[in-house]
Amino acid sequence: MMGVPDHDLEAYCIDVARRARVAAGELGGLTGAQKDAWLRRSAAALREQTPRVLAENQKDLSAARGLGLGASQVDRLELSPARMEEMARALEEIAALPDPIGQVIEARVRPSGLEVLKVRVPLGVVLFIYESRPNVTADAAAICLKSGNAVILRGGKEAAHSSAAIVQVLQDAAAETGLPGDAVQLVSTADRAAVSHFLALDQYVDLVIPRGGEGLIRRVVAEARMPVIKHYTGNCHVYVDRDADLEMAERLVVNAKCQRLGVCNTAESLLVHADIAAVFLPRIGRVLGRQGIEIRGDAEVCRTVAGAQAATEEDYRTEYLGPIISVKVVASLEEAIAHINHYGSHHTDAIVTDRLAAARAFTRGVDSSAVMVNASTRLNDGGQLGMGAEIGISTDKFHARGPCGMMELTSYKYVVYGAGHLRE
Amino acid sequence: MMGVPDHDLEAYCIDVARRARVAAGELGGLTGAQKDAWLRRSAAALREQTPRVLAENQKDLSAARGLGLGASQVDRLELSPARMEEMARALEEIAALPDPIGQVIEARVRPSGLEVLKVRVPLGVVLFIYESRPNVTADAAAICLKSGNAVILRGGKEAAHSSAAIVQVLQDAAAETGLPGDAVQLVSTADRAAVSHFLALDQYVDLVIPRGGEGLIRRVVAEARMPVIKHYTGNCHVYVDRDADLEMAERLVVNAKCQRLGVCNTAESLLVHADIAAVFLPRIGRVLGRQGIEIRGDAEVCRTVAGAQAATEEDYRTEYLGPIISVKVVASLEEAIAHINHYGSHHTDAIVTDRLAAARAFTRGVDSSAVMVNASTRLNDGGQLGMGAEIGISTDKFHARGPCGMMELTSYKYVVYGAGHLRE
Repeated sequence: MMGVPDHDLEAYCIDVARRARVAAGELGGLTGAQKDAWLRRSAAALREQTPRVLAENQKDLSAARGLGLGASQVDRLELSPARMEEMARALEEIAALPDPIGQVIEARVRPSGLEVLKVRVPLGVVLFIYESRPNVTADAAAICLKSGNAVILRGGKEAAHSSAAIVQVLQDAAAETGLPGDAVQLVSTADRAAVSHFLALDQYVDLVIPRGGEGLIRRVVAEARMPVIKHYTGNCHVYVDRDADLEMAERLVVNAKCQRLGVCNTAESLLVHADIAAVFLPRIGRVLGRQGIEIRGDAEVCRTVAGAQAATEEDYRTEYLGPIISVKVVASLEEAIAHINHYGSHHTDAIVTDRLAAARAFTRGVDSSAVMVNASTRLNDGGQLGMGAEIGISTDKFHARGPCGMMELTSYKYVVYGAGHLRE
Repeated sequence: MMGVPDHDLEAYCIDVARRARVAAGELGGLTGAQKDAWLRRSAAALREQTPRVLAENQKDLSAARGLGLGASQVDRLELSPARMEEMARALEEIAALPDPIGQVIEARVRPSGLEVLKVRVPLGVVLFIYESRPNVTADAAAICLKSGNAVILRGGKEAAHSSAAIVQVLQDAAAETGLPGDAVQLVSTADRAAVSHFLALDQYVDLVIPRGGEGLIRRVVAEARMPVIKHYTGNCHVYVDRDADLEMAERLVVNAKCQRLGVCNTAESLLVHADIAAVFLPRIGRVLGRQGIEIRGDAEVCRTVAGAQAATEEDYRTEYLGPIISVKVVASLEEAIAHINHYGSHHTDAIVTDRLAAARAFTRGVDSSAVMVNASTRLNDGGQLGMGAEIGISTDKFHARGPCGMMELTSYKYVVYGAGHLRE
């Protein structure tokens, strides 16, 4: 489809979106057993088709050199038998979860005898725009279909062959288990204009989930006529309180910053209470230094931490996604909360403290999707929090906040049973 | 503020929105007892200030003649001691409900001992745009504040004096009970451009709820940069199944159509199964005729119902908001479901049937915010369904569907307690 005239591209997008809408109508009426049969068949087929998928993955890896991808990008792109097995197991884990659709969320009987049920239903059609990790293809399709939604997958072009091979497996499994073939569709063009066309089709597409750089997400939000689940950045903080266990604080800061660079729940900023700064700053400075992390701090940080650079105002707003951390000394818990709410991105922020009153004030005062007490920011993740697989993390307050899994891809309807009940 | 230069109007709107944002920050931290004290003081003050509010209401009623309002509009505008008492009681009822904020929605302990709480929080600032019923002013403010949100009220200009008097009572009560004065603000200009300015201020306003005609709501959706809770129309159906109790069906159709014309959950269309059409159509035709309802129907309806007019395709899409109903004979339950999903507005639709399988198929197949079995469409209302006072009804699937009360004006955050928990 590359390089086709724009009206053909638009017609292609409308066709994909319409097919998804029709498939969504069918999916909403399936039983959990049917959806789980598809998930288990898909898992088995991914194992069977591993050689074919890996061969397609090789095409992407060869092309990656030409695209000038970095080592970490190539690593995310690369599939292996072990990664295929992980992908298959992830589908089986989703199959083992209860079916959210049809679940009675609330029920009450009115004094008149009227029975009121609030019943979970799918949203409809999800457009998922994501980066170059091929395993995300299978995960996202599984989460969407199990929650009764059709999905349109728009993957990174770096993973085009791998994603196409995986989607073929999922579609074949759909045919074998009686699911509509259009329940999972992969956009087959790398043309950026296709995204714009889909974002205008709010009569067919109910929700967009973009994952990737801030530029992409801002473009999607500006253009989309349908709701978007997203976070722009993850400028996450760890605040070490006056009454913190400094041993624990050290472990938490190192884990939050260093366990994995370049992901949204990694800590990008460290706040330290003034009363313990003289003790804790040199200590954490040495440990982070050994991990190869550059420190950018205020005057006191620069005085006490060897090698620290002066932070600018901009540093406190920055999600580095790399081996840098901003550090600031704060006079009080209140200053820490105000700093986080002002400079942060409402994603994930942690306090290290032994004081109950400090934990309560921090969890109430910090306006973020997840607020951690004596726990690493890296734990804000659907799997880690026990919600099952996630398709993204939201920093919005409307509809879904924090990790978004199957439940966040659903709506509800009221089903009301009477025996001739009238409005008086 | 009428007729002021547009940059002054914009500055005024920004000032109102900023004040609301600051007030929202304070409201989120209040206890339920503080909010309930404000509600009870407001109720008492409405009783005490009844003469003053009624005097202001008289100014609106005098002006109403000049504006050429119809009798039903004047009726909605008019306050009386009894209506003031109802308004005060409604605030006391909201005070008696549990505080939604801080409620733990879900909680789990992970195998690692990590404690995960999902805690209810306010959305922030709500812009509420509504028609000329002054009692809505007090209701909306109460629902918003009890759920921890600041509210900007934009009422109809017909009720300007009445609303201003009521808001003054609520603001005085706020001052007396320690709530921020800017928690409830009334937009003091009738300039339509003010709405456009507010709809651009997504940095201050978190949600808009427009209530009124479809034109107003479409304009708000087109301009708003923040989420909107709304329904465009209520084209609600009653489907009388083959195995319906026709006695009950008659009562339900009459209640759904005639109990109150001109509201969103009134039935605008009647579908009748072909097998009972010959019996039921003449019967319901007579009853509706006696109620002064005009019938527009298909060929069979015109043949069997005296005085029925031929319906156009457009009739089946129309929310009459008046003494007209469209009527159609359908060959099957499936045709009824397909008709409702195609022509309806996903608001409220009812089946009358004795067959369990029909009830199950209808409640699953009809894609509406509320699906009623042997109950009147008029019962889709927050109070009737036992959810407490409502601020509107949503036909969207994202965030809130059906009647929206306090719970629908909230979000949540994850609060996670560890003891030095790391990501492995």
